Amino acid sequence: MKLIRYRENGKVKPGVIYNGKYLSVADVIKDFDESFFGNDGLADLENLLKERADSLPVLSGDISLDSPVARPSKLVCIGLNYVDHALETNATPPAEPVIFMKSTTAIIGPNDDVVIPRNSLKTDWEVELSLVIGKRATYVDEANAMDYVAGYLLHNDYSEREFQVERGGQWTKGKGCDTFAPLGPWMATKDEIADVGNLRLWLKVNGKMMQDGNTSNLIFKIPFLISYTSQFMTLLPGDIISTGTPAGVAFGMKDQPYLRHGDMVELGIDGLGESRQRLVSYESTLK
Amino acid sequence: MKLIRYRENGKVKPGVIYNGKYLSVADVIKDFDESFFGNDGLADLENLLKERADSLPVLSGDISLDSPVARPSKLVCIGLNYVDHALETNATPPAEPVIFMKSTTAIIGPNDDVVIPRNSLKTDWEVELSLVIGKRATYVDEANAMDYVAGYLLHNDYSEREFQVERGGQWTKGKGCDTFAPLGPWMATKDEIADVGNLRLWLKVNGKMMQDGNTSNLIFKIPFLISYTSQFMTLLPGDIISTGTPAGVAFGMKDQPYLRHGDMVELGIDGLGESRQRLVSYESTLK
Repeated sequence: MKLIRYRENGKVKPGVIYNGKYLSVADVIKDFDESFFGNDGLADLENLLKERADSLPVLSGDISLDSPVARPSKLVCIGLNYVDHALETNATPPAEPVIFMKSTTAIIGPNDDVVIPRNSLKTDWEVELSLVIGKRATYVDEANAMDYVAGYLLHNDYSEREFQVERGGQWTKGKGCDTFAPLGPWMATKDEIADVGNLRLWLKVNGKMMQDGNTSNLIFKIPFLISYTSQFMTLLPGDIISTGTPAGVAFGMKDQPYLRHGDMVELGIDGLGESRQRLVSYESTLK
Repeated sequence: MKLIRYRENGKVKPGVIYNGKYLSVADVIKDFDESFFGNDGLADLENLLKERADSLPVLSGDISLDSPVARPSKLVCIGLNYVDHALETNATPPAEPVIFMKSTTAIIGPNDDVVIPRNSLKTDWEVELSLVIGKRATYVDEANAMDYVAGYLLHNDYSEREFQVERGGQWTKGKGCDTFAPLGPWMATKDEIADVGNLRLWLKVNGKMMQDGNTSNLIFKIPFLISYTSQFMTLLPGDIISTGTPAGVAFGMKDQPYLRHGDMVELGIDGLGESRQRLVSYESTLK
């Protein structure tokens, strides 16, 4: 299944892409949130579609998409998880995963505008494969870790490099700015992705290919990341882990071509669709 | 007003301490959460108490307390915000605030057991003054920042020092472990605290005074912290900012007396009450 959330009359509602059609499930399901994932919502939804997909309202193709999952309790990210990206940022590939958190207020729809924060000169992109946790995970063994995955989605982990590394202390300041986490277009359930360890992921800025990697190059693989993270905190249903970005970010380039008002970023991952964000200055949003 | 949340029949319910009595408001208010703080809940609650406090159910004094506020969208913390603490950890007092986030799954009641994580040898304490955000805050000016405060509470920012600083990258691994954020006993509304910039805060381990500081020694004061943080992320109603800890943590001592199974930690802040946590090993919780 593919889960989406769409906007209608000022509300965000759940839907699915099923046999190529966009269907609303808003009359049956409250939201794709912690309660949904934690109470076998995916199994119920699958049954619903088998039994009466024909009776669900069909949505037009030009609906406005929000993040395919509701605001999670946390958006956990893994840093420097591709060797080529670690090297381009002059970092040593880590001996164990680097974990940080993005403020969940950063989450937006896949094609929403991204706001360059006030006083930002170094807003950067990062195409990433993210996974959605399906059930409460504490001290999970690597061997069972995939049982805790509900599905996958596309994430652009926008990062303000000055805020992240030049403003003292932790990365938090440069990772959680509003609009810095476009998610989607859809969440693909685990069964939709034949081999999550072999997916191409790419990102273009103004039509030029900047990142073109493959999840086969992840230093720490998904089962290990889930197990590892769950040693340090409990993961709740609907929580998101973003697995890191391959080489090709502005920060790692000689001329550091950071994003400017009017730039267009497009990205995609095999099986997880594509998204595109227009960059706008903070000042332009005040008009 | 003083807000509490108490446990009854497997549920967490809202209450208040009013004229020295513990009163339930569970029949009137759903919870002290984002929706409550964001929709003038405090003003409504104040009216309710003025009009008919006498008709509210009185709770016994030995109720089990949960965190006084519901799980927030984020628990933002300020690092190294007392000069004496920065120096004891061999850190330079920062030129601007250090910001990090604790996983909200770490939040527990004020007197709940704290679990020493599996493989932890360096679990440490940090008494802190925390504030609760009352309304959505984005790019807030320092001059208006106090308008965004709903109230204050006591927080023990437990930290696993090996996970925090020896396991690669960010502090996240050592800050968000389950049970690492006891909050309360109560949230005091802003009007209850005459001068938040002059409160004694202290912490004892097994009866021995380890931290004894005063919020007058905060490097960055509360209005600045709110303004500063809101430049990097939107703060939502009910979100928590924890303002840092004074000197006297195990990490900063010569013999580094980290916490062990059976230890008892007690702490308090003027006007915000006291809490106590028994330390238990992870292994003991499996029995």
